[in-house]
Amino acid sequence: MRNVLLRLRFDGRAYHGWQIQKNAVTVQEVLQKALSAVLGSAPPIKGCSRTDAGVHALEFCVSMPIYSNISCSSLVRALNVNLPESIAVLSCSEVDEEFHARYSVKYKRYLYRIWNSPVRDPFAAGLALHWPARLDEKAMEREAQAFLGTHDFSAFCASGSSVEDKVRTVTEYTACRNGDMIELRITADGFLYNMVRIITGTLIDVERGRLESGSIADIIDSRDRKRAGFTAPPDGLYLEEVIY
Amino acid sequence: MRNVLLRLRFDGRAYHGWQIQKNAVTVQEVLQKALSAVLGSAPPIKGCSRTDAGVHALEFCVSMPIYSNISCSSLVRALNVNLPESIAVLSCSEVDEEFHARYSVKYKRYLYRIWNSPVRDPFAAGLALHWPARLDEKAMEREAQAFLGTHDFSAFCASGSSVEDKVRTVTEYTACRNGDMIELRITADGFLYNMVRIITGTLIDVERGRLESGSIADIIDSRDRKRAGFTAPPDGLYLEEVIY
Repeated sequence: MRNVLLRLRFDGRAYHGWQIQKNAVTVQEVLQKALSAVLGSAPPIKGCSRTDAGVHALEFCVSMPIYSNISCSSLVRALNVNLPESIAVLSCSEVDEEFHARYSVKYKRYLYRIWNSPVRDPFAAGLALHWPARLDEKAMEREAQAFLGTHDFSAFCASGSSVEDKVRTVTEYTACRNGDMIELRITADGFLYNMVRIITGTLIDVERGRLESGSIADIIDSRDRKRAGFTAPPDGLYLEEVIY
Repeated sequence: MRNVLLRLRFDGRAYHGWQIQKNAVTVQEVLQKALSAVLGSAPPIKGCSRTDAGVHALEFCVSMPIYSNISCSSLVRALNVNLPESIAVLSCSEVDEEFHARYSVKYKRYLYRIWNSPVRDPFAAGLALHWPARLDEKAMEREAQAFLGTHDFSAFCASGSSVEDKVRTVTEYTACRNGDMIELRITADGFLYNMVRIITGTLIDVERGRLESGSIADIIDSRDRKRAGFTAPPDGLYLEEVIY
């Protein structure tokens, strides 16, 4: 038995997230079908996180035991032949037996893209949040520094989450602009359900004056979801890097 | 009567090119419907060029006479409400009565994008040519300098074109790489049918040794389409800028 790690990239527009569910096509299901086609049967696969419907991944990690002696490079090629255009396997590598795509994660970085122009971009449909009014990304970056450190992020977790421990450590938050595209990046040791999307909505709400500048530390302390901003749509969200 | 110039951007994947045709959806047809919805009837519109099925535009220019006194900014907003996500009106401006989106063009610049990596990019499907073998974009740029100047480009025109005068002036050819994406840019006073796609295919054929390095000047002189390279697919082609 070998334990292998696959790095995937996928356009989330066609999928109801990662995890297998009834009555909706997910990335996990499509990957399992490709694995069955290549290996004869699909091994039990572990994803690095649950992503929501419509969320994208520049790098999504999957670990699994395989019994075949197919080389890693052949497995990449064969899977890509059997996957649709919207999913690509970027690489495959051998990992220790104890390695687990989800539990071995040290940090993950998410990217949130905002097309910040009065006119929409046809090439960004479903791939960025379109926000017509001008946003000051450097002011957003300054407000976001309040997220850094170890906090109970209950105020930034969608209601209905069954996770008990809501303490996470955010290590970096950056914002930059390339023309009309704003790129927000957040790195943490873990994320609660909808956490990046609520953080993004909160920063936009501060920018447009619906929430007070400098209030983010108080909102975190309140642990009250109703104090934070809106949940930004999945369109702009990308899992960008997984660090083990 | 006012003469106005619209700048559009469109994702060509959904369209059979610009020009109206039977039994296929084109950008012109969709724009005319939006103009009818906004102005009551569609004015005769002139596009800056005919683009093929699947070709994209970062900037496509259209001129037309209008009799309404709607402001340019209101026209932009109203058209964008009436257009699908894949087409956006970027701007509208008043132009002289003699201005014609096609005949007034001084130069146009096309961009051709190549995703140059062994693994496809899910986000580039239909938006770039996927070429797995490594290409040297700087060598391609050097070979491409042979296109500069005024030449009869018959060797780089798809057979079946009814254009008589095949002399065009190419003023610039550049190649650059951003990670795995190669961007090729060509500026000329006009382009023949499939000219950019045949030029791209010829440069790739020189890179992979199917055509001899340094042979492009001879191929131009031959005026023989069969001497040039393959026609690269429309996926990677974008009309990028129109200079009046």
